[in-house]
Amino acid sequence: MSNIQESAHQLEVAIQESDEFKDLKAAYEKVMNEPSSREMFDNFRNVQLELQQKQMQGLEITEEEVEKAKSVVELVQQHEDISKLMEQEQRVNMLINDISRTITKPLEELYSAE
Amino acid sequence: MSNIQESAHQLEVAIQESDEFKDLKAAYEKVMNEPSSREMFDNFRNVQLELQQKQMQGLEITEEEVEKAKSVVELVQQHEDISKLMEQEQRVNMLINDISRTITKPLEELYSAE
Ligand SMILES: [Ca+2]
Ligand SMILES: [Ca+2]
Repeated sequence: MSNIQESAHQLEVAIQESDEFKDLKAAYEKVMNEPSSREMFDNFRNVQLELQQKQMQGLEITEEEVEKAKSVVELVQQHEDISKLMEQEQRVNMLINDISRTITKPLEELYSAE
Repeated sequence: MSNIQESAHQLEVAIQESDEFKDLKAAYEKVMNEPSSREMFDNFRNVQLELQQKQMQGLEITEEEVEKAKSVVELVQQHEDISKLMEQEQRVNMLINDISRTITKPLEELYSAE
């Protein structure tokens, strides 16, 4: 294994063992283990994915679709376990973004050198 | 420093010390140190950035702009030092992509668990 692969694997393990990731896992499992929560969360993700895909394909998003997405977000925000899950997702995303900034620093420094 | 920050920093150093990154740095410096190469490369990057920004803003890209971009790409591909630099960029990008896949594995595994 190269130094890079070794360091990347160490980082993977550190992420898995972090409080942020453990809390996300617990929040995710809590939602997945309650069928009504799971259905609501799956529905929320499907609506979001559909809109993202349309956006990426440059397709028009109708007013009805925007309204539907808004009401699904409002619904899950009022659901204690799902809103907790979404908070934990955001914490882990911030962690991953911090890491990405760190590992792309050498490239950024190179290209901003002159 | 947390384990994550420590591992991320080790990874940053491993990237900086990798052959891939060192070769990219050498190729970049070779282009930057030759004014005519540098001008051609800067022009190429500006044309690409402009098109990317237009695309992200959902603006229409004219046929003239597509033709201009194509001819700039053809020009830099024939330039030995710049085409070498672009190859090295691709190698480092592949490296970074591999790393990204590794560090997002815990998340992927969590969300594909059920
Ligand atoms: Ca540095
Ligand atoms: Ca794993």
